[in-house]
Amino acid sequence: MKDLRLHNYWRSSASWRVRLGLNLKGLPFEYVAVHLLKDGGQQNSDAYRAVNPMRTVPTLEWTEADGTVRRLSQSLAILEFLQDHAPSPSLYPEDAYLRARARMLAEYVNSGMQPMQNLSVLQRIKAELNGDDKAWGAYWNTRGLEALEKMVQPTVGRFCVGDSVTLADVCLVPQLYGARRFALDLSPYPTLLRIEAACAEHPAFQASHPDRQPDATPG
Amino acid sequence: MKDLRLHNYWRSSASWRVRLGLNLKGLPFEYVAVHLLKDGGQQNSDAYRAVNPMRTVPTLEWTEADGTVRRLSQSLAILEFLQDHAPSPSLYPEDAYLRARARMLAEYVNSGMQPMQNLSVLQRIKAELNGDDKAWGAYWNTRGLEALEKMVQPTVGRFCVGDSVTLADVCLVPQLYGARRFALDLSPYPTLLRIEAACAEHPAFQASHPDRQPDATPG
Repeated sequence: MKDLRLHNYWRSSASWRVRLGLNLKGLPFEYVAVHLLKDGGQQNSDAYRAVNPMRTVPTLEWTEADGTVRRLSQSLAILEFLQDHAPSPSLYPEDAYLRARARMLAEYVNSGMQPMQNLSVLQRIKAELNGDDKAWGAYWNTRGLEALEKMVQPTVGRFCVGDSVTLADVCLVPQLYGARRFALDLSPYPTLLRIEAACAEHPAFQASHPDRQPDATPG
Repeated sequence: MKDLRLHNYWRSSASWRVRLGLNLKGLPFEYVAVHLLKDGGQQNSDAYRAVNPMRTVPTLEWTEADGTVRRLSQSLAILEFLQDHAPSPSLYPEDAYLRARARMLAEYVNSGMQPMQNLSVLQRIKAELNGDDKAWGAYWNTRGLEALEKMVQPTVGRFCVGDSVTLADVCLVPQLYGARRFALDLSPYPTLLRIEAACAEHPAFQASHPDRQPDATPG
């Protein structure tokens, strides 16, 4: 596995999860920017569809020792693969039940929050249904964060599950970043904010932060 | 891990995934029906919120040897936990790359298709935005199935990844069942239909089928 290339977008939360995984495991990669708004969305181009027919970011691409080029998409599948490839430091707790709880929190962000407010859904809410995309995104984030604040309580330490960074933190922090774009009041979620603050001190969270990426145009 | 109880709903595709996992691994469980439409949605009751603040089905509940009651939600996290608990027969390919491909296909259904057309989203499309919920669901299923038909090609055998049932089939088959509710033409997806037909011959797929569950009211 060499010449890792990550097709991604600075502000995509799923992209940030994989940048986090690569940084936490110390795996260098080439940053290939896919702009989700320019040119009608570069993810919809024929060139990117050949890379990933799902038209989602991120896609991880690499070259095997025999020259074969391989590709993977879906952030949580990529993170599990990185864990198999580079087990240490682990993003998955040793204990089977705690590992399942970390996966549960991660999957809740991945399937119960992010999809409802990702760019392709918001665009369709606005263009097809003439709906208020900001209100739509705020609703699903609020509903999700209320549940997450409760669901972390049985396992919380410095991070979501104990005192080490897990998959759950890798999903939570990008989601909170995204939630702020919907101008939410996050004060009802003190546990989540405390975890986010602990993560913010970690070099991997700093290096992978959206605002620091080459294609970033914050503000 | 004893006295397994599955809080679920016959027509929920995420519920079917976990019923499938339990059946494939030969783990008996008590069926606890949570009706997503009755009483304003039983998942929204205080009683169920205490079981699962995410208000989603399924939730797996069991008793440990020391009497502790434990709970897990999120279908893919539950399936990984069942795999840890009962590794054989495995739902995850031995080869790391194929395992990642199976997870990728599963995650695409889990986060790229199902959430956009789950009941809570369809209800909100209709009630809040006065939108056509059937058209909305059809759009996301069509978009998703087009991508899946392409994404399975590099690995397809009798099933999505080779000749054994994996996580990918466990997610695909319930999604196809759900897609039919939006009156889609599925003929453009011959590979997916062939895989579905192979799964339909498997006793675990038969036993876990929505229409055969105690709370089912098909038609």
